[in-house]
Amino acid sequence: MHLEAIYHSNDIPYVFAVDRSSIKIRIRVKKNDIVRCILMCSDRYDSPGKELPIELTHCAATQLFDYYEGLVTVPTKRLRYQFLLTDTAGKELWYGERALSASRVGAGYFQFPYLCDADLHVLPSWLADAVIYQIFPDRFRKGECMDASARDTRELNDWSDDNPKEYSMYGGNLQGIIEKLPYLVDLGVNTIYMTPIFASHSNHKYDTIDYYKIDPVFGTNETLKQLVDLAHACGIRVLLDAVFNHTGDDFYAFQEAQELGEQSAYRNWYHFNETPALADDNNTGYETFGTNVSTMPKLRTANPDVSAYFIDVALYWLKEFGIDGWRLDVANEVDHQFWRALRQAVKPLYPEAALIGEIMHYSGAWLRGDQFDGVMNYWLRDVMLDFFAAKSISASTFAGQLDEIQMSYTDQANTAMMQLLGSHDTLRFLTACSRGGWGWQSGESTLERMKLAVGFQLTYSGMPMIYYGDEVGMTGKSDPECRKPMVWQEDKQNKPLLAHYKKLIRLRHEYAPLRSGTTRVWFVDEIHNTVGFLRSHGDVTIGIVLNNSPTPWTVAQPLPQQWQGSTLHDLLTDKQYPESPSLSIPLQAYGMVILTNQQ
Amino acid sequence: MHLEAIYHSNDIPYVFAVDRSSIKIRIRVKKNDIVRCILMCSDRYDSPGKELPIELTHCAATQLFDYYEGLVTVPTKRLRYQFLLTDTAGKELWYGERALSASRVGAGYFQFPYLCDADLHVLPSWLADAVIYQIFPDRFRKGECMDASARDTRELNDWSDDNPKEYSMYGGNLQGIIEKLPYLVDLGVNTIYMTPIFASHSNHKYDTIDYYKIDPVFGTNETLKQLVDLAHACGIRVLLDAVFNHTGDDFYAFQEAQELGEQSAYRNWYHFNETPALADDNNTGYETFGTNVSTMPKLRTANPDVSAYFIDVALYWLKEFGIDGWRLDVANEVDHQFWRALRQAVKPLYPEAALIGEIMHYSGAWLRGDQFDGVMNYWLRDVMLDFFAAKSISASTFAGQLDEIQMSYTDQANTAMMQLLGSHDTLRFLTACSRGGWGWQSGESTLERMKLAVGFQLTYSGMPMIYYGDEVGMTGKSDPECRKPMVWQEDKQNKPLLAHYKKLIRLRHEYAPLRSGTTRVWFVDEIHNTVGFLRSHGDVTIGIVLNNSPTPWTVAQPLPQQWQGSTLHDLLTDKQYPESPSLSIPLQAYGMVILTNQQ
Repeated sequence: MHLEAIYHSNDIPYVFAVDRSSIKIRIRVKKNDIVRCILMCSDRYDSPGKELPIELTHCAATQLFDYYEGLVTVPTKRLRYQFLLTDTAGKELWYGERALSASRVGAGYFQFPYLCDADLHVLPSWLADAVIYQIFPDRFRKGECMDASARDTRELNDWSDDNPKEYSMYGGNLQGIIEKLPYLVDLGVNTIYMTPIFASHSNHKYDTIDYYKIDPVFGTNETLKQLVDLAHACGIRVLLDAVFNHTGDDFYAFQEAQELGEQSAYRNWYHFNETPALADDNNTGYETFGTNVSTMPKLRTANPDVSAYFIDVALYWLKEFGIDGWRLDVANEVDHQFWRALRQAVKPLYPEAALIGEIMHYSGAWLRGDQFDGVMNYWLRDVMLDFFAAKSISASTFAGQLDEIQMSYTDQANTAMMQLLGSHDTLRFLTACSRGGWGWQSGESTLERMKLAVGFQLTYSGMPMIYYGDEVGMTGKSDPECRKPMVWQEDKQNKPLLAHYKKLIRLRHEYAPLRSGTTRVWFVDEIHNTVGFLRSHGDVTIGIVLNNSPTPWTVAQPLPQQWQGSTLHDLLTDKQYPESPSLSIPLQAYGMVILTNQQ
Repeated sequence: MHLEAIYHSNDIPYVFAVDRSSIKIRIRVKKNDIVRCILMCSDRYDSPGKELPIELTHCAATQLFDYYEGLVTVPTKRLRYQFLLTDTAGKELWYGERALSASRVGAGYFQFPYLCDADLHVLPSWLADAVIYQIFPDRFRKGECMDASARDTRELNDWSDDNPKEYSMYGGNLQGIIEKLPYLVDLGVNTIYMTPIFASHSNHKYDTIDYYKIDPVFGTNETLKQLVDLAHACGIRVLLDAVFNHTGDDFYAFQEAQELGEQSAYRNWYHFNETPALADDNNTGYETFGTNVSTMPKLRTANPDVSAYFIDVALYWLKEFGIDGWRLDVANEVDHQFWRALRQAVKPLYPEAALIGEIMHYSGAWLRGDQFDGVMNYWLRDVMLDFFAAKSISASTFAGQLDEIQMSYTDQANTAMMQLLGSHDTLRFLTACSRGGWGWQSGESTLERMKLAVGFQLTYSGMPMIYYGDEVGMTGKSDPECRKPMVWQEDKQNKPLLAHYKKLIRLRHEYAPLRSGTTRVWFVDEIHNTVGFLRSHGDVTIGIVLNNSPTPWTVAQPLPQQWQGSTLHDLLTDKQYPESPSLSIPLQAYGMVILTNQQ
């Protein structure tokens, strides 16, 4: 048995409560080393010998490791457990907190001391069903302004100018989003996430001046109210962007802190240098977002006054405008204490409000149920970029990295991940697909690979999020090019891509396994660069097969157990697959199938 | 290179802030596989290529793994890093968040996004110097009662009766502790931890009736004030025991909740069964500590009223009586949210107050700096029991398990660990030593092994804690036998053991490396079952060598670099060791030496 690979710890994500009476337990072992993994568990106060065995199931495989997991019901809320591992040679070892040991007693016990309701990560009930659309308001739609007095008088780029610069203004606004709600309903999304909309000088509005006021160029607070109410009437939820890491430098507190210096009660809202002499052209004299971004002074969220102020902001928009949650900007540079306080203020009053962090790397420290529901899953984006766009990793690496992400987080966090192909901070996925790579030409099968990635994104776990315009084939390198004005002119929209999005979103809404099913790798074919997934929910299993290669071929797989006795059909083509011990599935170049046993 | 063994995660305990500008980073690798480990680090916003190299040092070795660590100064508070590993064959691999890779770019970066002061684990300044004495007040000393009206009228066991039963009362009290402060000063301890002293029916008082009142049989609130003031005058700090997992069943809130049922506002302070019919002889009808311990109904600490009440209790004794901190009972069955709230209420007002959890297993989830400073380190006790008392593990296993504990926690948590040989909940260590084992007789070298264990405990990291009476040779199996009345009759005290304790405590106070030094395994000799440690602080290094065998022998070791150019002497015998390329150190049977280069 490969001892160095074996790992469990009585901590998230290896053990966690999934509800008030169930605990999920995972263990990591060397790949292909273990044939059986039994969990022996009992109440932690039971006498030794009262343990019941639970056979854990293989749930994930990465390049180096296999993972097993199981769900344990805990009527007394307390758990004590050991693992009994059997390797391919038939050797058995016990594994507990004290040791890996041939002796059960020597291994000792792991403990899940008590399932505390207060520590349970409870998600808003709608997250599992969410399909999100991200809007950068200045660039989505310039709506007709109802109120002449508020008419936008700025010098604006023409909407047809698809070459935005860092400071360009296009005049998109909330009224525009309202006008396009029918478009979003038709697309099939049920949640919109808008980047910041509060008063600010910039086009992106991450330099907030007033957290209680919609920027006049976007509309009024009343416009937001209308937008939220209309969106809700359309079955669409609304997430706003909370910039609590820093303010704009014209925010009142920063203004006073700078003007009055140590005389200002707001001085301690920020991180001013202790030696002001250090302020010069290369040094703002205070900490900022990024490196000396003078327009974005960093907040001291550990200051109770600051914490209280911004928690009030978060509550205000939930209470007065009925928004459905917050995306938290630069979430990883703000202290954990602040995020915990925010969650504790928000969730008891608004249990259906989502809290999603912007974190671009591994986010375990924020996803234990005490801070965020999920994060913007840039890790998954990297993996999708590598497999579909750059084709720099193979099918088995792709499948392994997906499983590594799943095993890095709890079930709840995985459900609440914003699964994105791109955002306002990245190059667009279609552009990434258009670039050349090893052994293939720039532009080759660009659209096909984009469609395949979208097919994956919309059938995988988590909350798929579509960056505005991706669905009509918009392109662009990273900021500012990824922030072109939305293409509304129908002859410039990529209609086949749009139809592909709509079809897949519709399927996701129609078939529960695509939203709430377990997610398991079904098979991987390295030669054909093809990967299959199975998503199961109740009696229904859906198999998704993605051929990430220019070669059409027919995959042959033994019929998975869940499909015994069923006729299958492909949800994309309606082709029937009669029951057979072996499935033969023809795949087109960069083609996918979505098979189900649901009648 | 052994890939499966390599592990780092951007989370505690693999990366953590040690102060406002320094971050410690650790990595785990296969034992004896890696010869060099370089950390490449920079501000996370710096362009690639600006990384500076830091060579990590080997800091720990367990049975399977080596650990390397290093301290990084972060002027901008933000860090991005990768590891460059070189194995014994000269092969190099980069390790980052994305992969283990031959390609630096392919490896990606780990991130420590921002060092937030609010998340920093700041310890009370005195913890590193603490030597703690645990008192079970009913059994320590029956003091003369000043106030005749409060004289104890219970039927008490005679102090000479060393066969306590579960419900025995001996009449020990706070006045007794006051009387014995000179004894504690003479012993050398500087902190006392008392098990509960608030009003309750039992002798152990874990079934609290009134959290604001000292149990009359122990004294009055005024007696505690005197005790704390006198202890402080003697240089002794006082920790109390906080029982917030449950109350006694005669606590007012539980009384009302039971009497009035759903009519009582206190009903929701507890966990009553939803179907009262379930209450029967085997079922109390409400959750309790343990299994149906009817006198200890479990609190619903997630209820904000409960949380506020007990946080007030914690603050009250800190404020009004000047106590120095709390030991938190059954800490692992109370929700994390409550402990975080407690810390956030206590620490800003009383930064010098210690918060120590009672957790008998791996405690990482409570020791990230947001809840406890440390825990009662029963894990270390298990290891000491195995090595010194049962002799069921060898010197290398002992050293490996010590290092495993160190690597499981942050530096701060390791400093704040209560390092105990036993407590009121366990058999006494001397009794454990007296039992026979494989290849040795019951009673063989019992005292020698106890002394060796004490020698280890008092020269190792953390806060050594002495359970009352251990120092005079008290014996006893687990509760109630470990709770015998303290032996004050001098002819029944083990004077050589007491002298051994005093000598070692004095050395600990005198030599900073024994309190605050780094702790590294120096060497392990399996044949002689001998282990050596080096503890370094500034220019001073202390070497502790423990011969856990009945065979006297002379260990020969190359002179550690820290001691080059120094004459050494043994702090226990004052024997001199002139400088020599190789140290020859004679060891007695179960003997120890404590070498230092301090003049």
